[in-house]
Amino acid sequence: MDGYNLQKSLRRSKLETNLDRIITDMEKMAEFTSTTEGVTRLSYSKEDKQAKEYLKKEMKKVNLKIWEDGFGNLFGRREGLNPDAPVVMIGSHYDTVFHGGPIDGVAGVVAALEVLRVLEDNNIENYYPIELIAMNAEEGYRFGISAGTGIANSRALVGKMTEEELDSAKDRDGISKREAMIDYGLVPDLNNVTRPKGSIKTFIELHNEQGRVLEETNTDIGIVDCFPGTGTYLLKFKGRLDNTAVPMDARKDPLLAASKFVIAVNKIAKKMDGKISGQVGRLNVDPNLAAYVSEEVNLNVQFRIFDEHTHNTIDLYEILEQEVKRIEKETDVEIELKSYEARRGYSNPTPPIQMSKENNKIIEEVCEELKYSYIKAPLGIFHDAVIIGEFFPATLIYVPCEGGITHHPDEWTDYKDIKKGVDVMLHLVKKASNK
Amino acid sequence: MDGYNLQKSLRRSKLETNLDRIITDMEKMAEFTSTTEGVTRLSYSKEDKQAKEYLKKEMKKVNLKIWEDGFGNLFGRREGLNPDAPVVMIGSHYDTVFHGGPIDGVAGVVAALEVLRVLEDNNIENYYPIELIAMNAEEGYRFGISAGTGIANSRALVGKMTEEELDSAKDRDGISKREAMIDYGLVPDLNNVTRPKGSIKTFIELHNEQGRVLEETNTDIGIVDCFPGTGTYLLKFKGRLDNTAVPMDARKDPLLAASKFVIAVNKIAKKMDGKISGQVGRLNVDPNLAAYVSEEVNLNVQFRIFDEHTHNTIDLYEILEQEVKRIEKETDVEIELKSYEARRGYSNPTPPIQMSKENNKIIEEVCEELKYSYIKAPLGIFHDAVIIGEFFPATLIYVPCEGGITHHPDEWTDYKDIKKGVDVMLHLVKKASNK
Repeated sequence: MDGYNLQKSLRRSKLETNLDRIITDMEKMAEFTSTTEGVTRLSYSKEDKQAKEYLKKEMKKVNLKIWEDGFGNLFGRREGLNPDAPVVMIGSHYDTVFHGGPIDGVAGVVAALEVLRVLEDNNIENYYPIELIAMNAEEGYRFGISAGTGIANSRALVGKMTEEELDSAKDRDGISKREAMIDYGLVPDLNNVTRPKGSIKTFIELHNEQGRVLEETNTDIGIVDCFPGTGTYLLKFKGRLDNTAVPMDARKDPLLAASKFVIAVNKIAKKMDGKISGQVGRLNVDPNLAAYVSEEVNLNVQFRIFDEHTHNTIDLYEILEQEVKRIEKETDVEIELKSYEARRGYSNPTPPIQMSKENNKIIEEVCEELKYSYIKAPLGIFHDAVIIGEFFPATLIYVPCEGGITHHPDEWTDYKDIKKGVDVMLHLVKKASNK
Repeated sequence: MDGYNLQKSLRRSKLETNLDRIITDMEKMAEFTSTTEGVTRLSYSKEDKQAKEYLKKEMKKVNLKIWEDGFGNLFGRREGLNPDAPVVMIGSHYDTVFHGGPIDGVAGVVAALEVLRVLEDNNIENYYPIELIAMNAEEGYRFGISAGTGIANSRALVGKMTEEELDSAKDRDGISKREAMIDYGLVPDLNNVTRPKGSIKTFIELHNEQGRVLEETNTDIGIVDCFPGTGTYLLKFKGRLDNTAVPMDARKDPLLAASKFVIAVNKIAKKMDGKISGQVGRLNVDPNLAAYVSEEVNLNVQFRIFDEHTHNTIDLYEILEQEVKRIEKETDVEIELKSYEARRGYSNPTPPIQMSKENNKIIEEVCEELKYSYIKAPLGIFHDAVIIGEFFPATLIYVPCEGGITHHPDEWTDYKDIKKGVDVMLHLVKKASNK
């Protein structure tokens, strides 16, 4: 169907999502929290179970076939005319961080539920089976987000989770992920959770932007063009501890060296603005006392790479190495440079992940039909759709996020703004699930 | 007495300190610790009392008049030919940090004790009374060194302590300084502790260098010329939290701005090397995550000023303000600049404190007579002598410090090196306590 015919079909169908139902779902889900401040719904907790029960009840009303996999992801399947065809998977995660907000993740689960309600209410057939996924363990808060245990279940879904992580990732009480899953009533089985190649036709996720681009440009819908590649580097600056009265020329000041490096990173990224971005966002000084030249500084620099060509042609490690050598000479500070991704067995930097161009084109057409403003941009936050997007065609629809505030009790998106995103998703799912 | 006659008198007297006694004192004092790792003797603790009992016993053998003041400082007085004359006060502190070493402070207390032993053994008269002080609460570790509660008892001695601090300074169990002192059996009374103007002829302290200058220049004795003035400034860099994929030109990166400032500080100090020194030694990034442009950076810069003329002519605040304005323009980051000393009611920067020129000249002569190598330098660590030196003529004699390591279980000075310092101190005290 070309753009012209699609527009006609949209007008004909007059399909509409229901704001009241969306509000009810959003508010109900926010009640399943272990804290009064914000929303705290950690994976494999009591609140997790309560939220799941609510979702199951609502999914039953839409006549979905419901089950839970070995990692606590909840599924609801609307059978397709061809039950053997690959599925259109829709949804997001329903776990939150500690003292998080009511929107992050949940909006995408509620959107998927509402889409299926509209399809059911209007008796709309689908050739490809549609599967709602209420994903667990995206935030990874309970088992230490800093340890790289986030977006866990989508990693499991695409076969990038290891058995080892289930035992090594532990919460603050020392309970491993595997133990928590078993306590929760699950039988953790990686093979059972992983979806084979070709089994997902496309994955569609609605999410709040967790940034301010939509708000500042007064735009309804963000279409994620690609997820930029990531190059993270760890640097250690080894100086010499000295008290503040030591003559300047007798010092080895690691913070001075690190500062020169912060500026170098900024210059590198600025020179290629649009193709890469980057900064030092994490920097720790030891011993961090005003009266001393510090002994050691550790920092992380992260670059993002926005297109395949730049990814294939730029050698960030070599560029940084040049700067390191220059700064070592200037400051007499010894500097270690390591690639973070390389350490974890990934390519470094990781390649940009292109979101489904086909779906994004449909979204643009739907937005024009519905008179919703939109922008298409490479956007940077990690989501399930990004992990899945490396293995299956995936789509990320952004709705605005007030002030860019997220992972915080003040996180907010106007319900009407969520509805616009759900409208767009509805028409995309309808189209994507038919021949 | 001129240098020539002094040398003759030294040769004549053949006074000598005793290495074995120094070793016994040092090793005995190290036993009064609450930890097996290093020495931990916090103020107003059981170990504090035990150390004091040992010192009292040794002081009695030297026929000193012994008492304790309201702040737990231990005194031993050798009466002078003129009991009404101002006293020559000698000593240092005997409290330590947590997991500290056996040298810091204690070496100065042991030195004073040994000096009085030699005077007593040799029946040497003194015109001015000599008071040994075993100072308490110099480290201030128990009541939070970061809160500026260190060198407490010397501040009390010169009248710079407030009643308020006795209640506001608390240890990690919430026990205030006043409560701890009362529990220890003291009656805290500031008026009783403070020494009136003119009542101290001179204060003489031996201390380990807590730096590497003596070691690296293979020098026996460090003579502290002056304690440099201190200018500390607190800066807040307010940027905007953004994720790592935000275009470079849309950012307000506070760590970039802070890095420019770190480099500016280095340039300012380098340009005046020898007259001032300085660095950013403390810097905290918020939220300090690799994947985000940070939101706020707070840092402290500390300058040291080595002479009165520079102190009177340089306006560091204005110089920094210029840099702040430039960096604000370059980075779009909002920067707050405050003077730390000004906030506490001190002049900013504080003036350099000249140590007693008269005593230092005697030390040089003694060193030449004893064939001990020495250097005279402005040195920067805070000691009781510095606090007292603002109100009374004071002297600080440094002995070497292995590797510059201090406040650490590995802190060490060869006993023979300590003895050399005690020899120098002996002759200085002998000279200073007579007309």
